Amino acid sequence: FSSQAPIRATLFPGDGIGPEIADSVKQVFKAADVPIEWEEHFVGDEIDPRTQSFLTWESLESVRRNGVGLKGPMATPIGKGHRSLNLTLRKELNLYANVRPCHSLPGYKTRYDDVNLITIRENTEGEYSGLEHQVVRGVVESLKIITRQASLRVAEYAFHYAKTHGRKRVSAIHKANIMQKTDGLFLKCCREVAEKYPEIKYEEVVIDNCCMMLVKNPSLFDVLVMPNLYGDIISDLCAGLIGGLGLTPSCNIGEGGIALAEAVHGSAPDIAGKNLANPTALLLSAVSMLRHLELHNKAGQIQDAIVSTISEGKCRTADLGGKSKTTEFTRAIIDHL
Amino acid sequence: FSSQAPIRATLFPGDGIGPEIADSVKQVFKAADVPIEWEEHFVGDEIDPRTQSFLTWESLESVRRNGVGLKGPMATPIGKGHRSLNLTLRKELNLYANVRPCHSLPGYKTRYDDVNLITIRENTEGEYSGLEHQVVRGVVESLKIITRQASLRVAEYAFHYAKTHGRKRVSAIHKANIMQKTDGLFLKCCREVAEKYPEIKYEEVVIDNCCMMLVKNPSLFDVLVMPNLYGDIISDLCAGLIGGLGLTPSCNIGEGGIALAEAVHGSAPDIAGKNLANPTALLLSAVSMLRHLELHNKAGQIQDAIVSTISEGKCRTADLGGKSKTTEFTRAIIDHL
Ligand SMILES: CC(C)[C@H](C(=O)O)[C@@H](O)C(=O)O
Ligand SMILES: CC(C)[C@H](C(=O)O)[C@@H](O)C(=O)O
Repeated sequence: FSSQAPIRATLFPGDGIGPEIADSVKQVFKAADVPIEWEEHFVGDEIDPRTQSFLTWESLESVRRNGVGLKGPMATPIGKGHRSLNLTLRKELNLYANVRPCHSLPGYKTRYDDVNLITIRENTEGEYSGLEHQVVRGVVESLKIITRQASLRVAEYAFHYAKTHGRKRVSAIHKANIMQKTDGLFLKCCREVAEKYPEIKYEEVVIDNCCMMLVKNPSLFDVLVMPNLYGDIISDLCAGLIGGLGLTPSCNIGEGGIALAEAVHGSAPDIAGKNLANPTALLLSAVSMLRHLELHNKAGQIQDAIVSTISEGKCRTADLGGKSKTTEFTRAIIDHL
Repeated sequence: FSSQAPIRATLFPGDGIGPEIADSVKQVFKAADVPIEWEEHFVGDEIDPRTQSFLTWESLESVRRNGVGLKGPMATPIGKGHRSLNLTLRKELNLYANVRPCHSLPGYKTRYDDVNLITIRENTEGEYSGLEHQVVRGVVESLKIITRQASLRVAEYAFHYAKTHGRKRVSAIHKANIMQKTDGLFLKCCREVAEKYPEIKYEEVVIDNCCMMLVKNPSLFDVLVMPNLYGDIISDLCAGLIGGLGLTPSCNIGEGGIALAEAVHGSAPDIAGKNLANPTALLLSAVSMLRHLELHNKAGQIQDAIVSTISEGKCRTADLGGKSKTTEFTRAIIDHL
């Protein structure tokens, strides 16, 4: 049994531009000799009663079995009686932490050149409970739920991440001055975990102030950990600092060590099938999957090739101001390997 | 009865640096011959049972009677059994809309030079209900409440503001893809009001996407209207784009036409009493109070003097990288009148 035995990983190309950018990943991985064997799964045409969504049971089983996967954009089909595909994945696979490394891409200029942030978002509860009701007409209520278990779990992940990635500081983002009990519990859990990591500096920052500081000076932060909705907001804000979701990788961590990397941008139906899409976010997400598998050499090689291609500036897709096709950009990355 | 009869306005100097920056406003107003007579009120030393907070009943009555006021920073004293001073004011005076004009200050360089945004925040409900409970240990719930009445009221204010201030577009910020019922109701109300203002373009933007767009290109937006927490977050983010809360005015609008302008930065106890504070946010808030009173000449004159002083760069307080004292900066503004 050689160390060359391929690792099986699930691939959800997704919709819209998904298949094209997934193709790019497959080609780059092949050229870099990455020992991954893809198991492709598509979103079904009908609701699978076992998942209550258009995701097939087999595709979820595939991720559970393989423990790792990569996911392109999935637009939730319009209609009633089924759940959002993204939320179904998070729930069914218990993907409790969404991790987004957010680094300035050398050579791609934005207003910020010093961004080096990791956002870690609780991904299963909070404002995403789905519990809303109207009793009195014109008065609607929505329930935010924070649990000790999920808060400890994501805090533990954040501190462990900081420690194993040479990070110095974890900031817990909250609004506990207003939501004293819910966000208060989240902070209490973070403090408990912080005590076990005396080498990591711990601080607490109110979300409004955090957003102001981020746009003024992102280098004030290092690793940020937060409840679901704040994570949704802040991870997109951070992506904006470096150029947008098209350049930002993301990885979801689930119970039992599952890692589902994903491009969090949309499926861009307007340019789908036209060979115009930028595969960078999916490629960088694939790189984060490789790091999760501790294939650091391959990960570094591919990441460097992506960064060199973009910073060289000769070959860029339209969203970055260039004229290159998806396939040309992919070829350029392969040439840089 | 001459048109020179002074208008009475309530002044809450507030704590920390509050009295110093309030002094600055009083001096500038005097020098500019603004026909305002201040009625000063301080936060009490004891809980007033009629307000359940350290705010005195008389001070609230003063705002109700005068219809206009200006407020410095108020730190809520630590302890139990009373409410936050800021929240008490919002609740007792029914300050339903928080309006923050956010313009790049000519001459004060940040990463953005084109900011011209108005954020209008619902200020009374949403995530600020104060309703939180724990039934099962380790599971805490918080209630967000959106009502048709408050949503229509703030939407109406936003469109009216846009129309009367020559603005072209109102964007409603939401997360209705997740909170379909609560944020859905907010959007429904905005749409209803939008129909009455066909000359104003109306759009809906998801909050995470909005934050990403704001940091990439703030000129994509014009007037933004949103529920309480999103407004808290986005108004601070926007303030960050132009340099921070120390440069951003704010005005709260209440039922019956009450306007309470306020500096939303903190009370900065570390520099209190040292003649180091920057009075700009309170001065600009005072200017917005004058505009509310339709004293546009005086408002323009004072605003121009502030902008000239800052952009000249000779006289700046420490927070803007200068060495001037509060009183020197105030004098410079007066010299520019
Ligand atoms: C599409 C939407 C449901 C989703 C979310 O809010 O989590 C997205 O914004 C994300 O961040 O993955
Ligand atoms: C101090 C705090 C309660 C307040 C809020 O959250 O509303 C502040 O952030 C603001 O924006 O005025």
